[in-house]
Amino acid sequence: MAAPMTDSSASMRDAVLAVVREARAAAPRLALASAEEKNAALRAMVGRLRADRNAILSANARDVEAARAAQLSEALIDRLTLTDQRLDGMVRSVEAVIELPDPVGAVIREWTRPNGLVIRKVRVPLGVVGIIFESRPNVASECGSLCVKSGNAAVLRGGAEAFRSNQAIAASLRRALQEAGLPEAAVSTLPTADRAAVDVMLQLHDLIDVVIPRGGEALIRKVADTSRIPVIKHAKGVCHVYVDEAADLEMAQAIALNAKCQRPATCNAMETLLVHERAAKAFLPDCLRRLRGSGVELRGCEATRRLVPDVAAATEADWSTEYLDLILSVKVVRSLDEAVEHIARYGSAHSDAIVTQDPRHAERFVQAVDSAAVYVNASTRFTDGFQFGLGAEIGISTDRLHARGPMGLEELTTYKYVVHGTGQLRE
Amino acid sequence: MAAPMTDSSASMRDAVLAVVREARAAAPRLALASAEEKNAALRAMVGRLRADRNAILSANARDVEAARAAQLSEALIDRLTLTDQRLDGMVRSVEAVIELPDPVGAVIREWTRPNGLVIRKVRVPLGVVGIIFESRPNVASECGSLCVKSGNAAVLRGGAEAFRSNQAIAASLRRALQEAGLPEAAVSTLPTADRAAVDVMLQLHDLIDVVIPRGGEALIRKVADTSRIPVIKHAKGVCHVYVDEAADLEMAQAIALNAKCQRPATCNAMETLLVHERAAKAFLPDCLRRLRGSGVELRGCEATRRLVPDVAAATEADWSTEYLDLILSVKVVRSLDEAVEHIARYGSAHSDAIVTQDPRHAERFVQAVDSAAVYVNASTRFTDGFQFGLGAEIGISTDRLHARGPMGLEELTTYKYVVHGTGQLRE
Repeated sequence: MAAPMTDSSASMRDAVLAVVREARAAAPRLALASAEEKNAALRAMVGRLRADRNAILSANARDVEAARAAQLSEALIDRLTLTDQRLDGMVRSVEAVIELPDPVGAVIREWTRPNGLVIRKVRVPLGVVGIIFESRPNVASECGSLCVKSGNAAVLRGGAEAFRSNQAIAASLRRALQEAGLPEAAVSTLPTADRAAVDVMLQLHDLIDVVIPRGGEALIRKVADTSRIPVIKHAKGVCHVYVDEAADLEMAQAIALNAKCQRPATCNAMETLLVHERAAKAFLPDCLRRLRGSGVELRGCEATRRLVPDVAAATEADWSTEYLDLILSVKVVRSLDEAVEHIARYGSAHSDAIVTQDPRHAERFVQAVDSAAVYVNASTRFTDGFQFGLGAEIGISTDRLHARGPMGLEELTTYKYVVHGTGQLRE
Repeated sequence: MAAPMTDSSASMRDAVLAVVREARAAAPRLALASAEEKNAALRAMVGRLRADRNAILSANARDVEAARAAQLSEALIDRLTLTDQRLDGMVRSVEAVIELPDPVGAVIREWTRPNGLVIRKVRVPLGVVGIIFESRPNVASECGSLCVKSGNAAVLRGGAEAFRSNQAIAASLRRALQEAGLPEAAVSTLPTADRAAVDVMLQLHDLIDVVIPRGGEALIRKVADTSRIPVIKHAKGVCHVYVDEAADLEMAQAIALNAKCQRPATCNAMETLLVHERAAKAFLPDCLRRLRGSGVELRGCEATRRLVPDVAAATEADWSTEYLDLILSVKVVRSLDEAVEHIARYGSAHSDAIVTQDPRHAERFVQAVDSAAVYVNASTRFTDGFQFGLGAEIGISTDRLHARGPMGLEELTTYKYVVHGTGQLRE
C-alpha cells in the first residue's frame, strides 16, 4: 500500500500529470509532422544547443558542485560533467539524426485481397515515449532528438543529480521546437528532482505508450517492477565468446581481446570465455597471458587452472556476473552443446559469439543460442545501433517483445493498417 | 497485500509453477523444430481430436451440467457447449494451420556492413506464450496449434467453467505432440480450476514471455493490472463509420448496415455512425430506417433526432460504449475534423472507416485517425486475420507495442540478429 498522500506529494503528482498531459496533447501534432518540419526542429536544436552553451554549462556546474558536496562517487561525477567537448558531441549526435531517413509513413508491406481490398501496413509513431536514465545529461538531447525524428513526444527523466543540466538541455530543445513551429511539449522533463515523481509517471498508462529505462540493473529492475506502462528493458549483458575446437586460434585470440578489453564497461563486452577442451591447451596459455597483459583479472574453472597457473577459482556466481570491468571468467567445455547450455543457463541473451572455421558448428551455434545477437567469427562489441548501420540507437533492448537488440528509429515506431476499398462488405 | 498463503494455496502455487516450468523447458525444443516436425504434430492433433471426440464431448457435457446447476447464463452455456459440428470446426482450424507457412527462420532483412559483417535479422519464436481466455473451449485447440506452428510453447488457461473440456482438449493435443516426437509440455494447461492460479501464473515473468488475454473487458483489465509479464491486450472495439459530405450515399448505407448488423457481437462491428451535416439530410432518414428494419436500436445526437423522429437521445456514455449488440449511436458532425476529433476522444483505436469519393478527404482521414485499421470505403468488419490474409489469428491486438490489429503467426514471433564475420574487431 502506498503511504497516504500529503499535500506536497499531491501537488507533485499534479505537476507530473500536467507535464505528461501536455506531452500527450503534443503527440498527434508530432505524428503528423513532415520530415521537413521535424528536420527543421532538429536543425533549430543544433542552433539552440550552441547558443545556449553557457547556460547549459553553468547549470551543469551547479549539478557537479552539488554532487561533490554530497560526496557522490568520482565515476558518477565524471559521467555527470559536461565539457565543451561533450557539448560538441551532443550537437554532432543531433546533426547525425537529421541525416537519417524519416521512418514514419513508410509502407512496410502492401497487398491486395481477392475481394479487391488494398491493405497497407504503414509505419506510425508509438506516441509518447518515456525515457528514464541516469547521470549522463547527453542522453537528454540524444533521446529527445530521436523521439522527435520518429514523430514521438518524449518525456525525459534523468538522474536527480543531473536535474539542472537536464532542465537546461530540455529548455534548449523546447525553444528549438517552438522556433520550428512544433509544440514544445514534444520534449518534456518531469518538473521536480523528487524521486517519487518517477513512480507517479510510471502509473500513467493512459498517457504514456512505452517506457525505456537506460541505466544500471537496479534502475531497470525498479522500473520493470513498478511500471504500469509497457517497458522495453535495456538490461545487462553477460556475453560469451566460445572458441570452438575448429577455431582459427589467432582469430579467436584477437576476438577475445577485443570483446573483453576494447571497452569493458559496455553491455556488449565479453564476460565469459568458453573454450572447447580440444582447443584449450593450444589456446588458453597464450591468450590468457595476453589478456593479463592488458590488465584483465582472470577467474577460471578447474581445467583452466590446470592449464594456466595463478588463475583464481571462479565461483558459481561468476558465471552470471556482468563485471563491466577488466575481469573475465574462463571455462573449458567438453563440447559445443555444453557451451550452448552454459550460455542458456548463465547468459543474458544479449550477445554471444562462436569462433570456428567449421560452418556446421557455426550453424548449430547460431540456431541453438537464443540471444539478441549471435556472432560467428566476430567480436560481441558490434551489438550497437551505429555498428549495425541503424544510424543511431536509443539503446539495446534485452526484451523479446517489439524490439530486440539495438533500437534505432524504426524501433521507436509501430504500424497501422490502411485499407482502401470500393464498397467491400463482409459476407 | 496478498493474504498469507495457506497450505492449500502453497501447493496450488507449486502445481502451477511445475506446469509452467515444464512449458519453459519444452520451449527450446519447439524453437528448433523443423516445419515438417511441427506439421506432423499438427496432423497428429487432427487425428487425436477426431479419435478422442467422445472423451472431449463427455468432459464438455459435465462442464455444461455444472454450469446449468450453477445457473450460469444461457449465453455463456451456449459458448461453452461443444457439439459434433463445433468439434469439426476445431479440427478444420488445426488443418488450416498446417497449410500456413512456417514463420520461424525467415530472414526479415539482410545487409552487409562496410567492414564485411553480414547481418541477418531472423525470425524466432517468442518462447512461452500464456493465453488466458473465457468460455469457448475451441480457443484451446486454436491457440495451441498456432503456438506450436510458430515454435512457441503455450500455457493455456480457459474459463473455470470449461475446465474439464479444456483439460480433455489439451490432453489430446499433448498426446499428439508425443506421437510426433515433440515435448507434450509444449501445450500445457493450468492444473486447477482455482481462479487464484491465474494470479500465480501472471507473476512468472521469468518463465513466460508474453500473455495474451482473450475475452471481455473485465478479464483484459484484470490481466493487465495484475500481470508482471508483458501483456498484449485484445480489448474493446468502439468502431466508427464516418459518412463524408463527398460520400457515395448508397455505398455508405451498405457499409453502415454491414458494419453494424453482419455480426454485431464482434469487436470490429460499428458502434457509432458519424455523418457530415451536408450529407445528413439525404442520408440519415433512409439509412436509419433500414437499420431499424434490421432490428437496430438507435441513439442519436440532437441533429439526428431533428432529422429522424423517434430516435432516443444518446447520452455522453453512449459515445464510448461498445454495445456488442444491435444498438447504434448516431452523430451529425460539422466537418471531417470534427469526426476525427470524435474518434480520437471516444474511440478505442481499433477499426474506423470513412466513406468518401474525395481522395483528399480519404487521405486526411487516414493520416489523422490513429487506429489499428483505418478503412476507406469498406466495412470495419474486415479487421480479422483471415480477412487480411494472415491465414489465422490468435486475436486482434489493441496495443501499440509488438503487434497491432490482427495477430497471425508472424506476430507470435520475435527476431534475433545473426552476424557472420571473418574476424572483425571493433575499433
